[in-house]
Amino acid sequence: MTQVNDWDALAAQFAVDAIRCSTAAGSGHPTSSLSAAHLLAVLYSDHLRYDVADPKALANDRFVLSKGHASPLMYAVLKAIGAITDEQLLSFRKMDSPLQGHPVPLPEMPWVDVATGSLGQGLPIGLGMALGLKMDRLPARVWVLMGDSEAAEGSVWEAMANAAHHGTDNLIAILDMNRLGQRGPTMLGWDGDTYAARAEAFGWRSIRVDGHDAEAVHAAYLEAERAEQPAIVIAKTEKGHGVSFLADREGWHGKALSAEEAERAIAELGGIRDLRIAPPKPEAGAAPAATGAAVELPTYEEGIATRKAFGEALAALTARLDVVALDGEVSNSTYTEDVEQVAPERFVELYIAEQCMAGVAVGMQVVGKNPFAATFGAFLTRAYDFVRMAAVSRANLRLAGSHAGVSIGEDGPSQMALEDLSMMRAVHGSTVLYPCDGNSTAQLVGLMADLPGIVYMRTTREKTPAVHAPGSVFRVGGSAVLREGPDDRVALVGAGVTLFEALKAADALAAEGIAARVIDCYSIKPIDSATLRKALAETGLLVTVEDHWVDGGLGDAVLAAVASEGELSGRVVKLGVTEMPGSGTPDELRERAGISAGRIAEAARTSLGR
Amino acid sequence: MTQVNDWDALAAQFAVDAIRCSTAAGSGHPTSSLSAAHLLAVLYSDHLRYDVADPKALANDRFVLSKGHASPLMYAVLKAIGAITDEQLLSFRKMDSPLQGHPVPLPEMPWVDVATGSLGQGLPIGLGMALGLKMDRLPARVWVLMGDSEAAEGSVWEAMANAAHHGTDNLIAILDMNRLGQRGPTMLGWDGDTYAARAEAFGWRSIRVDGHDAEAVHAAYLEAERAEQPAIVIAKTEKGHGVSFLADREGWHGKALSAEEAERAIAELGGIRDLRIAPPKPEAGAAPAATGAAVELPTYEEGIATRKAFGEALAALTARLDVVALDGEVSNSTYTEDVEQVAPERFVELYIAEQCMAGVAVGMQVVGKNPFAATFGAFLTRAYDFVRMAAVSRANLRLAGSHAGVSIGEDGPSQMALEDLSMMRAVHGSTVLYPCDGNSTAQLVGLMADLPGIVYMRTTREKTPAVHAPGSVFRVGGSAVLREGPDDRVALVGAGVTLFEALKAADALAAEGIAARVIDCYSIKPIDSATLRKALAETGLLVTVEDHWVDGGLGDAVLAAVASEGELSGRVVKLGVTEMPGSGTPDELRERAGISAGRIAEAARTSLGR
Repeated sequence: MTQVNDWDALAAQFAVDAIRCSTAAGSGHPTSSLSAAHLLAVLYSDHLRYDVADPKALANDRFVLSKGHASPLMYAVLKAIGAITDEQLLSFRKMDSPLQGHPVPLPEMPWVDVATGSLGQGLPIGLGMALGLKMDRLPARVWVLMGDSEAAEGSVWEAMANAAHHGTDNLIAILDMNRLGQRGPTMLGWDGDTYAARAEAFGWRSIRVDGHDAEAVHAAYLEAERAEQPAIVIAKTEKGHGVSFLADREGWHGKALSAEEAERAIAELGGIRDLRIAPPKPEAGAAPAATGAAVELPTYEEGIATRKAFGEALAALTARLDVVALDGEVSNSTYTEDVEQVAPERFVELYIAEQCMAGVAVGMQVVGKNPFAATFGAFLTRAYDFVRMAAVSRANLRLAGSHAGVSIGEDGPSQMALEDLSMMRAVHGSTVLYPCDGNSTAQLVGLMADLPGIVYMRTTREKTPAVHAPGSVFRVGGSAVLREGPDDRVALVGAGVTLFEALKAADALAAEGIAARVIDCYSIKPIDSATLRKALAETGLLVTVEDHWVDGGLGDAVLAAVASEGELSGRVVKLGVTEMPGSGTPDELRERAGISAGRIAEAARTSLGR
Repeated sequence: MTQVNDWDALAAQFAVDAIRCSTAAGSGHPTSSLSAAHLLAVLYSDHLRYDVADPKALANDRFVLSKGHASPLMYAVLKAIGAITDEQLLSFRKMDSPLQGHPVPLPEMPWVDVATGSLGQGLPIGLGMALGLKMDRLPARVWVLMGDSEAAEGSVWEAMANAAHHGTDNLIAILDMNRLGQRGPTMLGWDGDTYAARAEAFGWRSIRVDGHDAEAVHAAYLEAERAEQPAIVIAKTEKGHGVSFLADREGWHGKALSAEEAERAIAELGGIRDLRIAPPKPEAGAAPAATGAAVELPTYEEGIATRKAFGEALAALTARLDVVALDGEVSNSTYTEDVEQVAPERFVELYIAEQCMAGVAVGMQVVGKNPFAATFGAFLTRAYDFVRMAAVSRANLRLAGSHAGVSIGEDGPSQMALEDLSMMRAVHGSTVLYPCDGNSTAQLVGLMADLPGIVYMRTTREKTPAVHAPGSVFRVGGSAVLREGPDDRVALVGAGVTLFEALKAADALAAEGIAARVIDCYSIKPIDSATLRKALAETGLLVTVEDHWVDGGLGDAVLAAVASEGELSGRVVKLGVTEMPGSGTPDELRERAGISAGRIAEAARTSLGR
């Protein structure tokens, strides 16, 4: 155990370094760093079991800076543990520095596991790490430093409830209750009783402490470590602690000190120090996890709903022991229940808490899991901020959204994914897949498991026919041309359920002497630009058809593809949903939305002047 | 007070009618309806002060069916209060019936105020109604019927915390604790103690009751009405109550009974009844609210950040007494603090709870308010499901997202809105505005207040120059051509901060003898297709440039516009952000992202073969 004097000196060093780097940057959050300096001084000196030289080791405890704006504190800690130099510290917030305004896990910044800065995400992510570690029976703990402002985010309470429900006794939250948010006092101020009551009601052990009393903090952490349930250390702190003109003052959020102010503050804090600490070592590392057996994906001769093929393929994929399925209490709709049946220990029910589900997925992939998270595509809108941030985290995240489009029928628009293609296309580095049948679904699920970044698969509620034979090959960025001939006068571009409408439309047009190409655009991002451009060049007319709002989805992706090289020519007609649907049968709703076979054929005829 | 026998008979009628209409439809959620039948029998008989003939009257109490899948129960109630006929009841879930699978507020369904079906939204929306009613000192209450599964959604706890904080004593939640979710037991089952502890810790009065004991329910409602804080009635119920083969049985979620099963169930429930009830009358209606004074929007001769112009224009707009500003604890960044200064009674701080903020906005517009909700554009991703559902609710919702794009600089990607244009374009019936300077911002804020549907304005962190003179006129669907000549060889299409980069690029190109048109595309949806098509026809080359991911934003909108009529010709080059940004200065980051003046000019030159 470190001496109290040493903790205090270390905390003062953290405070000084946080001020130094933010003043050098001319921006940043020094005061939000100062409130938590003692909390991290004690944690990194005596509690976090962590190999600085091997930060990705699974045996390590994990630390998540949920209050990501306190990055100056994080970087001050990294200097003290010898991860970065003082010179690097002073590159904070500068172009190309890995010390970004909010922490980001870059190759040059391996001591950060996930990006933070959107508040309320650290706890769900930490829960994912904790659940992943428990799956492998690793003794590591996960520590999450939260701000008090972020306790207003519902995602925090989703994680609180799920952590207790899942018995996550290796998860410890530290609440930096500094009373002040961005624009003034938080909702609860220093009302630690209320935070404690809420945490206890959600099944957590709560421990109250003066966050600037290092010995008390140490004792609180010991108690949290011993708890047989998730624990939260509620630390009463002062924003800007230790500096007379900053401590507990409003108006200092997110403001760097001037050079002169910094000099005064540093003097009050005892000047610049260069203490070094070595965190406790982790327990001996676990053996690398077994990789499992070869995967045999299902094949289909008959029609099947792609959501069901997704579930069956994912169940097959659990032959790989890293694969985990997460669901938001709809596993009998998304068919992740097929995973639960074959590998119940790798199925995690997160109830109706989509933000938490996405955060858990991000956390799990940090600790070596390969999570697939599924719910209705419509409800993934709930998790959009988590998906966006997962991209900043360079996370490998596999998402599946079922119940695409108006084709779900009678349940009505609240349950219809109609924004999902657009939403997922706009995520950095994402892959967006939308297979139409069982074989393409199963093969693409197999590919998903090894793709980098955010991968989204959209599935359909209804059973659809088998159009791709077993053994067909699919690739990310590919497409399949199902009808083609030298006299094609139009190319119909569908995906998922609209592919079948396009095929029927092609039959109808053929009967009238109009040859139509049909393209299954199962990979919407990346998209098969070459095939689409060739089709436009050869036919002069593309008709895209999607069970999605007409903005931002397949049609826009096709337009972008054909525009991506050289001069435009020909015509592209986008069919998609333009009016708010209601209830009805899938066929009725597709007809009304203008994406039925009849409406596709009509659009082709009109464009051809027939 | 109604007699217990009558309540029980009414509840049985509701149950029977819920079974009848779902069996007629062949789908729906009868069992989730049966659990709450007594709860609504007592509510509509003796507590909800409601004028069936004037459902939009502000004097009415409001009812929100947060568990929207229990729509059969809602429609059974509407029949009993004389709002719909039995024939209409049996049109449930059929094409063009206003009795959709989940309730939707259509002109033919004025007894429904908001769409539900995405769980966890009813309480935030109800909070908005309650806050709006209190602003006008109306004595009406808001009742929200929640499912127990949806208590897992964080948005519920955002609303719980905010309701208590804001002293919303006119808000009553009813928790239908039927223990069973979609695929099995809920997280807490019948553990009413835990629900109660959570609610109490969040500042609510909790009242426990047997949800099938009508007299006890009546007493619980009376207690809730008397509470001087928000109150939740935690009702222990049985899913499928009253029918031997349904009650508390798993495997019956979301399943209609067969005709034969329905017959048996109806017999057990005492057969078909046709009881009619009249809810208690509301207190005498308030006088229509004053409309306020004429609005004088600010004008600018000098540069200003558009976020600041937004705040000033919104402050000016509060001369209209319906205008309310909501913020997510960043009012000194979004500048809604300007509203707080001039109309503090119409500024509502919702802390860092973006879902709740959006839900409150939807609720407020139901009761005659005109709410503008603001936060960082990046964090509106948090509320996407609420925005999507607001469109289903036919709500008029004004959203402002500040801190657009890489141009925010040093804070880094977690704070950068880079998906927002795509996200908002994909919302049904939305309007997406992105002004570049003070005068365009102020004028467009003025227009926002009267637009139907979901309206989004994107604002910029940095100060930008004044390019539009005071008195300039802007329109939804318009654009402004800032440079134009007969020899234009390229048209540069910018919006917001990129407009200035485009202007500088045009200067550079002009110096090389390349005349460039510059278009301020301040209205991204609807977009000025005519001007864009004309520019492409006249110059042969459009270069779009946006501080946003290259997918789904301005560039895709421009492509869709030029493709929307006739044959394509010419070239469209999209510039946008394609690599994950870090920290840096705004200029450095725009340069790196390829959206700086230099990179725009380079793209134009390359495309022109120069």
